[in-house]
Amino acid sequence: MSKQKVPYKIYLSEEEIPKAWYNVRADMKTDHRPILNPGTLKPMTPEELSPVFCDELVKQELNDKDRFIEIPEDIRNFYKMYRPSPLVRAYCLEEALGTPAKIYYKYEGGNTSGSHKLNSAIAQAYYAKQQGLVGLTTETGAGQWGTALSMACGFLGLDLKVFMVKISAEQKPYRKGVIETFGASVTPSPSNTTQVGRKILESDPDSNGSLGCAISEAVEVAVTTEGYRYALGSVLNQVLLHQSILGMEAKTAFEKIGEYPDIVIGCAGGGSNLGGLMSPFMEEKIVGKDTAPYFIAVEPASCPTLTRGKFAYDFCDTGMVTPLAKMYTLGATFAPSGSHAGGLRYHGMSPILSQLYHDGFIDEARSVVQTDVFKAAEMFAKAEGTLPAPESAHAIHATIEEALKCKETGEEKTILFGLSGTGYFDIGAYMQYNDGTMVDSIPTDEDLQRGFAAIPNVEG
Amino acid sequence: MSKQKVPYKIYLSEEEIPKAWYNVRADMKTDHRPILNPGTLKPMTPEELSPVFCDELVKQELNDKDRFIEIPEDIRNFYKMYRPSPLVRAYCLEEALGTPAKIYYKYEGGNTSGSHKLNSAIAQAYYAKQQGLVGLTTETGAGQWGTALSMACGFLGLDLKVFMVKISAEQKPYRKGVIETFGASVTPSPSNTTQVGRKILESDPDSNGSLGCAISEAVEVAVTTEGYRYALGSVLNQVLLHQSILGMEAKTAFEKIGEYPDIVIGCAGGGSNLGGLMSPFMEEKIVGKDTAPYFIAVEPASCPTLTRGKFAYDFCDTGMVTPLAKMYTLGATFAPSGSHAGGLRYHGMSPILSQLYHDGFIDEARSVVQTDVFKAAEMFAKAEGTLPAPESAHAIHATIEEALKCKETGEEKTILFGLSGTGYFDIGAYMQYNDGTMVDSIPTDEDLQRGFAAIPNVEG
Repeated sequence: MSKQKVPYKIYLSEEEIPKAWYNVRADMKTDHRPILNPGTLKPMTPEELSPVFCDELVKQELNDKDRFIEIPEDIRNFYKMYRPSPLVRAYCLEEALGTPAKIYYKYEGGNTSGSHKLNSAIAQAYYAKQQGLVGLTTETGAGQWGTALSMACGFLGLDLKVFMVKISAEQKPYRKGVIETFGASVTPSPSNTTQVGRKILESDPDSNGSLGCAISEAVEVAVTTEGYRYALGSVLNQVLLHQSILGMEAKTAFEKIGEYPDIVIGCAGGGSNLGGLMSPFMEEKIVGKDTAPYFIAVEPASCPTLTRGKFAYDFCDTGMVTPLAKMYTLGATFAPSGSHAGGLRYHGMSPILSQLYHDGFIDEARSVVQTDVFKAAEMFAKAEGTLPAPESAHAIHATIEEALKCKETGEEKTILFGLSGTGYFDIGAYMQYNDGTMVDSIPTDEDLQRGFAAIPNVEG
Repeated sequence: MSKQKVPYKIYLSEEEIPKAWYNVRADMKTDHRPILNPGTLKPMTPEELSPVFCDELVKQELNDKDRFIEIPEDIRNFYKMYRPSPLVRAYCLEEALGTPAKIYYKYEGGNTSGSHKLNSAIAQAYYAKQQGLVGLTTETGAGQWGTALSMACGFLGLDLKVFMVKISAEQKPYRKGVIETFGASVTPSPSNTTQVGRKILESDPDSNGSLGCAISEAVEVAVTTEGYRYALGSVLNQVLLHQSILGMEAKTAFEKIGEYPDIVIGCAGGGSNLGGLMSPFMEEKIVGKDTAPYFIAVEPASCPTLTRGKFAYDFCDTGMVTPLAKMYTLGATFAPSGSHAGGLRYHGMSPILSQLYHDGFIDEARSVVQTDVFKAAEMFAKAEGTLPAPESAHAIHATIEEALKCKETGEEKTILFGLSGTGYFDIGAYMQYNDGTMVDSIPTDEDLQRGFAAIPNVEG
């Protein structure tokens, strides 16, 4: 450890928590295509969005002008209960790898929700409360988002109805327990409490559910119940905006220690962690600075949205009731194999990130099979004393690959990755990996074609 | 939040992590009575202890001279991966209670082991490694200690054999999964792998196990296996020594903000958290300073060691193979009701803390029934956004009581309590509390008499 020059953990002071979120859209040369009303195929208007999202969030969703949007003081005060999160220097991982690379990670798993999702949850709940709403509806898959939103709503005294993918509710009863502890209700999806749920159950009574299906149910309840709106933990522009705090804090921390990342790595599901971590660094790439890092998105081989998907207008949900978004997609009907552990199982990708990847600002996307992901996760856990979420471990896998390249070349690159969550709630998957029963699944070209066939034929 | 003068979280720099542990025994006016060889009833010698603990830890266990014991650099470097832990100002809890009291908590739940146990685990593993041992044995009940020691052993490449109370292993398979992920083996106790385990199974084949029984098995394996020693997560003098980092860090943090606690509150099981948090503040009480805080120990009504136990020489384990310690005890055969959730189910109490309580340096011990504990826990979780371990929630309960007294009197007392762990692994208990199936159990006087009858008749 004689090489230690910077601390193991770099904490900002509470005063250094950003006072505004960064809105990368304002800097993008090519803005992403607008979301479309699936009926008229015209761009969604604020009026059309307001039954779904509360008013301030509609503005944020459509805002492509303001580079910075102020964080209200009450949200900043909530952030102070668990932020700033540390930027951690992975000295022990470096030593275990024997790499000259300097590895840093932004660790978001230390709060009770266990992930970065809380950053957007408190914002979405706050604006709903400001508008005098009664409550929110949402969906959750792996459970991180549902937990985060239940904490935010519990704190503000808002009601929350969570539609939880049925197989997750059964496999992860404790996630359900945490969400209920914070006062929210949990309905396994598909359920017979909604029209879209009943329709799905009619055609498949034993359906395990999917994120897309739970979204459909949550949206239906929000738009048909007085005083309720819908909240989503990823994909949306507003979510990327709120999550920009990840990259902004990381940038400030790097400035404090006089370092800067050569490579930024994030796991890719709907894009909340990836976009939040990358976008503040992306700014420089967009204006063409030489200092801009190299960006790598890492996704599961079982749900290869960026690496094998299509860039097209598609529905955000299985029930095909949401607006159409131009994004990388595997088709709204695509569902990754049931053997896939953890999150990152969404068929689409944030329209902002899709555009940035399409335009070459995200330099590279790669996919990894899950046994390789868990191998990297366990190595990291033993070396660094932190058990990562399977989602985050995708980024660890790529980090180790890049660090080993540096070992070959002797380059002392600085690598930043997002450790977006804790592995506490995925011990079942770790146990599968340890006892050798975890299997890898890679969709065949035929599987993908079936998903692509469901993509509507909309130009844009 | 206009009253905010100090930050929500006070972090020390890594350089401010203590460089030595504080050994309260060196300052105690009445040292606790020595531990006795159960055969000869003479004080245990270092030679007799060395088959059980590694040599450096034997020295620490018996050291009543040195006020400070240096922390080796490798342990300090490990501490830097997850320490200093924050001292948190509970602004939102204060607001929810409407109290003029200033509430602070030392939060130890942010690391992957989920509790303060890691502070002693790395120390015990380090000295074993230094001595060239192959591995360690230990027991775990609720699972925190087993997880912490598996992380420490995984980091140093030591083997670890964990005897896990059978009912816990069945009720908490994920705890077992985490421990195995870090490379340790888990044996449900009582097991047929030891003499003492077989004996217990003979008389009760369906035994759920107990901490005392798991200790007996772990000690037996340690003393009969070449290259192994035994490690314990609480009760021992060495553990209180390592855990003194809790109180020392807290003291330094209070100095930084120009505050000082009037009351220090900790939950009481075997004493590792309570002693670690209190002892550095206790120093002043012992030398009779006016600034010394008022100390409150909080224990479960179902296992009322301090409030209803006897101060006597007793065995530390059910199998009655360990040395005798002079301590508050309910008798080695006492087991709290199966309905009791979480840890704090040990029949005895750290000899150091027992002596301090007996001599009046711990001002007060109180007991709480578990439904009241969970009520306090949920209130805290909603207000502060952190789900506490049921153990720690005992301290929360007393903190709320004291804060409400301040509301009555208008006193602006400063309260410090130990939030020793996260509630992530106790969601099952939270679910019981939420659905109304949690029951309180308070042992009858007859229950206690049965336990007392097993206490050996040893003067001291």
